[in-house]
Amino acid sequence: MVLYIIGLGLADEKDITVKGLEIVKSCERIYLEAYTSILMVSKEKLEAFYGKEIVIADREMVESEADAIFNNAENVDIAFLVVGDPFGATTHTDLVVRAKERGIKVVSIHNASIMNAIGCCGLQLYNYGQTISIVFFTENWRPDSFYDKIKQNRDLGLHTLCLLDIKVKEQSSENMARGRKIYEPPRYMTVNQAVEQLLEIEEKRGLQVYTPSTIAVGLARIGSEDQSIVAGTMEELLTVDFGGPLHSFVIPGNVHFLEADILRMFAVDKNSFDSNVIVLEH
Amino acid sequence: MVLYIIGLGLADEKDITVKGLEIVKSCERIYLEAYTSILMVSKEKLEAFYGKEIVIADREMVESEADAIFNNAENVDIAFLVVGDPFGATTHTDLVVRAKERGIKVVSIHNASIMNAIGCCGLQLYNYGQTISIVFFTENWRPDSFYDKIKQNRDLGLHTLCLLDIKVKEQSSENMARGRKIYEPPRYMTVNQAVEQLLEIEEKRGLQVYTPSTIAVGLARIGSEDQSIVAGTMEELLTVDFGGPLHSFVIPGNVHFLEADILRMFAVDKNSFDSNVIVLEH
Repeated sequence: MVLYIIGLGLADEKDITVKGLEIVKSCERIYLEAYTSILMVSKEKLEAFYGKEIVIADREMVESEADAIFNNAENVDIAFLVVGDPFGATTHTDLVVRAKERGIKVVSIHNASIMNAIGCCGLQLYNYGQTISIVFFTENWRPDSFYDKIKQNRDLGLHTLCLLDIKVKEQSSENMARGRKIYEPPRYMTVNQAVEQLLEIEEKRGLQVYTPSTIAVGLARIGSEDQSIVAGTMEELLTVDFGGPLHSFVIPGNVHFLEADILRMFAVDKNSFDSNVIVLEH
Repeated sequence: MVLYIIGLGLADEKDITVKGLEIVKSCERIYLEAYTSILMVSKEKLEAFYGKEIVIADREMVESEADAIFNNAENVDIAFLVVGDPFGATTHTDLVVRAKERGIKVVSIHNASIMNAIGCCGLQLYNYGQTISIVFFTENWRPDSFYDKIKQNRDLGLHTLCLLDIKVKEQSSENMARGRKIYEPPRYMTVNQAVEQLLEIEEKRGLQVYTPSTIAVGLARIGSEDQSIVAGTMEELLTVDFGGPLHSFVIPGNVHFLEADILRMFAVDKNSFDSNVIVLEH
């Protein structure tokens, strides 16, 4: 039969496609991937909407117990639900490879993900360079390789989408060392934290890839009714309250005037926006 | 009331989200944008699915008759349907700006577009550089600025998504000069045509940005049941029959071994793939 990898889209239970919903309702078992992103509704709400039970698939299960997911796949259809689009994270790709190696047919049902929905801030998708990820700094681990990628993008005049870290079901190093399966509460990086880390790295590296007065865009809960998009200098964005997760961040490159028209609508301060944005006139 | 810009996704009528469908059914008027992309179903099939009439909005209407679209927007909800995601094309962005200028509330319903669905070929989205567009060459107009962008991407080890030209409701230069509203039949660039043009430009520019033996990926009708993904050298892809539109094309940069595992599944010739692909081992 078929392993369906079904994208749920961005916000709530009704962001699944009509096709996706029909398939979920016809599947024997339903797994929900729950560690590379989060949906803004509970498992229970999804179950009520589907009229079906859902098994939460955490990293451990997907990476080391794929057998359980594939169990009896010769005879029944199985749904593996993913927030966003099926191919947003390496793990899902890996699941596809392993399924195909066992001769299981895999069908993907696409949906929106932050990688294309980010277009809502008005910066055109084809003007983006490489997407980067910003991870939570710790006392001893403050990786800054994203800085070079932002530089590459900005040198080419391109925008940079920054995906912000999510820590779900993580163990403290102490608990991990002692083999205790005790997990920390989930953490989602805010736009403010991302800006703070970015400015710290600029201070350290000093190539003026961006500065506190560089115009950037903070986004939260894209696709939901209370989504938030705010454009402003990085300094301004440090203190904007974006509310609950998930947050994303964009550092524009050169901004086309049509792009600036949209971005300005989201400006925290239109005067500051106009004096700091770099607009291409052609 | 509200102007809803609703993404229809990639293939057929059931790729709309549950939320999108509910909104369409509740709107007073429904427009379908039909010139920057195409859905693989007819207007009639969509109308039957929605139980509503649809007005086709061509480029002329959207760019110069927005008033008709906005008519009575103070009192009724209006749906503007877009293939893929609402923010895939500049024109939709422009429509948002003009609606907001008139004080009309705009809500977007996101969906998959080729910009994120391209992940299905196994190359990770965060390893892509800037997306390029390849337009049909004519006798006198053979623009090649995409060549420099592919070079930039490949110099950085990044993949390049190539969007292939669509000509819908275009006039011949003669008909345009004479003001005759006679339109050419629609044309959709095939992977073969794209490769041909790319190789012609490489021959002309000669920087070895890619060669006939560079591994690339041709894709057709992504998101539909008969989607096609084929990896091979550009020379091999010249003769692969991808069937009907829409086609897309990817020129990989450095390929991670996990990415290669997937890509190899789609190889037209696995030996040729393995001897020509450039794989990063870490």
